[in-house]
Amino acid sequence: MSKTTTGKTNAGNSFEDFTVGRVIEHATPRTITEGDRALYRALYPTRFALPSSAEFAHSVGLEQHPVEELIGFHIAFGKTVPDVSLNAVANLGYAECRFHQPVVPGDTLRTKSEVIGLKQNSNGKTGVVYVRSTATNQRGEVAIDWCRWVMVNKRDEDAPAPEPFVPDLKPALAATDLKIPAGPDFTAYDEVAAGEKHRFGDYEVGEKIDHVDGVTLTDPEHMLATRLWQNTAKVHFNTQARPDGNRLIYGGHVISMARALSFNGPANAQLIAAINAGAHVAPAYADRTIYARSEVLDKAETDAPGVGALRLRLVATRGRDESMTLRGEDGKYADGVLLDLDYWVLIPI
Amino acid sequence: MSKTTTGKTNAGNSFEDFTVGRVIEHATPRTITEGDRALYRALYPTRFALPSSAEFAHSVGLEQHPVEELIGFHIAFGKTVPDVSLNAVANLGYAECRFHQPVVPGDTLRTKSEVIGLKQNSNGKTGVVYVRSTATNQRGEVAIDWCRWVMVNKRDEDAPAPEPFVPDLKPALAATDLKIPAGPDFTAYDEVAAGEKHRFGDYEVGEKIDHVDGVTLTDPEHMLATRLWQNTAKVHFNTQARPDGNRLIYGGHVISMARALSFNGPANAQLIAAINAGAHVAPAYADRTIYARSEVLDKAETDAPGVGALRLRLVATRGRDESMTLRGEDGKYADGVLLDLDYWVLIPI
Amino acid sequence: MSKTTTGKTNAGNSFEDFTVGRVIEHATPRTITEGDRALYRALYPTRFALPSSAEFAHSVGLEQHPVEELIGFHIAFGKTVPDVSLNAVANLGYAECRFHQPVVPGDTLRTKSEVIGLKQNSNGKTGVVYVRSTATNQRGEVAIDWCRWVMVNKRDEDAPAPEPFVPDLKPALAATDLKIPAGPDFTAYDEVAAGEKHRFGDYEVGEKIDHVDGVTLTDPEHMLATRLWQNTAKVHFNTQARPDGNRLIYGGHVISMARALSFNGPANAQLIAAINAGAHVAPAYADRTIYARSEVLDKAETDAPGVGALRLRLVATRGRDESMTLRGEDGKYADGVLLDLDYWVLIPI
Repeated sequence: MSKTTTGKTNAGNSFEDFTVGRVIEHATPRTITEGDRALYRALYPTRFALPSSAEFAHSVGLEQHPVEELIGFHIAFGKTVPDVSLNAVANLGYAECRFHQPVVPGDTLRTKSEVIGLKQNSNGKTGVVYVRSTATNQRGEVAIDWCRWVMVNKRDEDAPAPEPFVPDLKPALAATDLKIPAGPDFTAYDEVAAGEKHRFGDYEVGEKIDHVDGVTLTDPEHMLATRLWQNTAKVHFNTQARPDGNRLIYGGHVISMARALSFNGPANAQLIAAINAGAHVAPAYADRTIYARSEVLDKAETDAPGVGALRLRLVATRGRDESMTLRGEDGKYADGVLLDLDYWVLIPI
Repeated sequence: MSKTTTGKTNAGNSFEDFTVGRVIEHATPRTITEGDRALYRALYPTRFALPSSAEFAHSVGLEQHPVEELIGFHIAFGKTVPDVSLNAVANLGYAECRFHQPVVPGDTLRTKSEVIGLKQNSNGKTGVVYVRSTATNQRGEVAIDWCRWVMVNKRDEDAPAPEPFVPDLKPALAATDLKIPAGPDFTAYDEVAAGEKHRFGDYEVGEKIDHVDGVTLTDPEHMLATRLWQNTAKVHFNTQARPDGNRLIYGGHVISMARALSFNGPANAQLIAAINAGAHVAPAYADRTIYARSEVLDKAETDAPGVGALRLRLVATRGRDESMTLRGEDGKYADGVLLDLDYWVLIPI
Repeated sequence: MSKTTTGKTNAGNSFEDFTVGRVIEHATPRTITEGDRALYRALYPTRFALPSSAEFAHSVGLEQHPVEELIGFHIAFGKTVPDVSLNAVANLGYAECRFHQPVVPGDTLRTKSEVIGLKQNSNGKTGVVYVRSTATNQRGEVAIDWCRWVMVNKRDEDAPAPEPFVPDLKPALAATDLKIPAGPDFTAYDEVAAGEKHRFGDYEVGEKIDHVDGVTLTDPEHMLATRLWQNTAKVHFNTQARPDGNRLIYGGHVISMARALSFNGPANAQLIAAINAGAHVAPAYADRTIYARSEVLDKAETDAPGVGALRLRLVATRGRDESMTLRGEDGKYADGVLLDLDYWVLIPI
């Protein structure tokens, strides 16, 4: 009689499998190619000149042609899913995400994560796991690193709670924390090619910009994207995985859609330097129409020639809210808000 | 209190923003890659041997491997949308489109347009804008140029009408007007690899060919295509943009679908040399099944070795019409006709 | 009056067009690119380290970075459709499929088929055609070869039956029949990068593995895939081609989906060496959720350093069957079984 094995599939880690200081090397290094750039263009309405044009990249001092920063982020992040969040109940937050150098076709990324915090919830059924993940390239150099924390199920409710430890994460990176990659020189910046005349000096802290356009989501598109990042969380692909029969859209799909829509606004925000914080406020599903808006939170000059940094809040909403309300009087996110992302971009001075 | 800006998004040009002689440099240069070729294959049932096989391209004298001509056209055209047709009511026509040289992966295209004609409509609310657009590559050489005219809304109905000027555009390019790119030599043409034994001499003016096969359209596919060309017209992506809640399919998607279907027919029509005229006769939406047929309008030899030119009418229809009726007795397009495209292709003699 | 031609489209071959020994050179050589790899990743949840990472490929002795074996197979197979199976009633089986060398970006594949058997059915309306197809690269070297047999309609029921000839095909290739490509050396295999600690010695003949995860199919995705392989069978694309209005999903889409899902199991099965047999047991349509499981049928060492071979049965089902029943007591395939594929993979010892 044939033998059936269950130990040869990945069951993911439960809360009690994590210990502070544990380092997990995630599987499947992944080479980035021009095919990724093309698919990203097909999936998101991006028109930023730097990732669009090798010529433009050369004109701002970059010898090789970077892909969009979020391609690197989604790939690096996707690798952590089978080990960190396969049994996650919720993705609670991000912090201290820095883009150390542009990712270019030919780069191979691998990711490892260190557990930097643990806190069992009072219900005894779940706990919060904090990890710092680092994506390195084929030269062993850091490309991207970030922290996130997720709520994970316990396998055994009777397992003892670990010593709680909550890491001290910055609510936002300061401009001086940014890793400005070697290379960018915006002194000869071609704003006609970029499609935008507004520069660093034209933006004021507190200013809000409605990006006007909307995109109605479909299931095949978000699945193509999420698979491209080798993110295997079943709720994105399998209508039998959730009681309501809907495929939950990967939060990164909403981030990329909102970032691309923001071209109709700060189109000179050519490079993402950091993500300070991010909240997936509400789930997204097919047939909803996504809009985006930005708010200028901070600004700073950098050491790179002609390069300034803007700290922006990127908000994605289901339906367009021209009042651009983020929270109601009760302090809760307004109805329709899907994403609240706080990030730094580089822009010509 | 925070400030809300509306001046940092693109509102597009209205009729009164155009003046004859005005030149607009369109944003976002775009590098073509092998990823574009792969996506085009995934989106359209194309099997023409030259763009399919680098070996075949070399065998007909082309050192580098061109992508389909329509990839270059859609990309070059897409750049004009935010400046020329964001406020367009209708895309009225094309003329004098020539493919000056094959576009190959690594080429970066940018597009500029000159306003060559203006005519306000008698209703005082709209006007027709004629532009000649030119796409150049990273060497500053012309890759593609074409004229089109669109009906554009006025911002202010009381604005004075400009002096009307209608440019003198050729109803069709003559064979001697074609820019046959340096390189093609069809004297050692491999018709087995190409999948077609019929050559230049086998086609008669007046002959009609039904391409038999049909493809049922879907929303995710046309959005992937249209985004790939960085065409941002919102009616293609946003179900809230039109009263009927349908996404209007980019006319170029229908052109590419019909051209690909025409492989089951003149499969040796390897290169598009020119588009003489084109009418998007009726809108296309998801769930409709597209068929195509061709009619030979003219033929001519060229100076390139072994290379002949056929002028074809490519008609796309919703549903198959084996009678191949283009117009009814009233002179109007027959029901179901979506596209009437008049173009020149290069074919082995 | 204009002339309408019907002789310039491909009507496909009918049963009486095939004669034993006839060789058909199939049209449209096709160059493989990094775009194909990216699209494959977007279409299937594959995470096998070797096709994912150029670095990993180098680490196991491969100078160039192969694409998934099924990319080569689907492309090579697609070329045979217009000549072999355009008028097919059913795709009856595969045998003796061997992957002679990895396919890498830049390779151009062309396919030819030799008719190796014919047998008219007793109803006089159809017959079975056996072909051996061979895909060669730009150096004229064999990349993949395989046999398949299809049931094809007769054009004329009164045409005489050919002398029946049924070729002697192996029910399965022996391990000694495999073409192990030059190169693979698994002696320094990185199982952390691969995401799997189980190796050749950990698998027992008779062992069954449930791959757990499911993917719900959509129409746009299987059409993108099937077009990418230049497979033009109209039932996959045209809702008017079948009485039920459904698009039939290309059987190869189910093979690729199941192979990708099997990563959650024998993730070290890095290279497909052969396909012994395959049955598309039931048709697949959009909105069905596909699951997969594997059974170890045989195992053998090879001459390549550190490289073992596993013979696996890969079963795809509609819905998950944890009992992993292949056939009922009546010997017929269990309800829900879509695919029964018998193949050899290479795995580190």
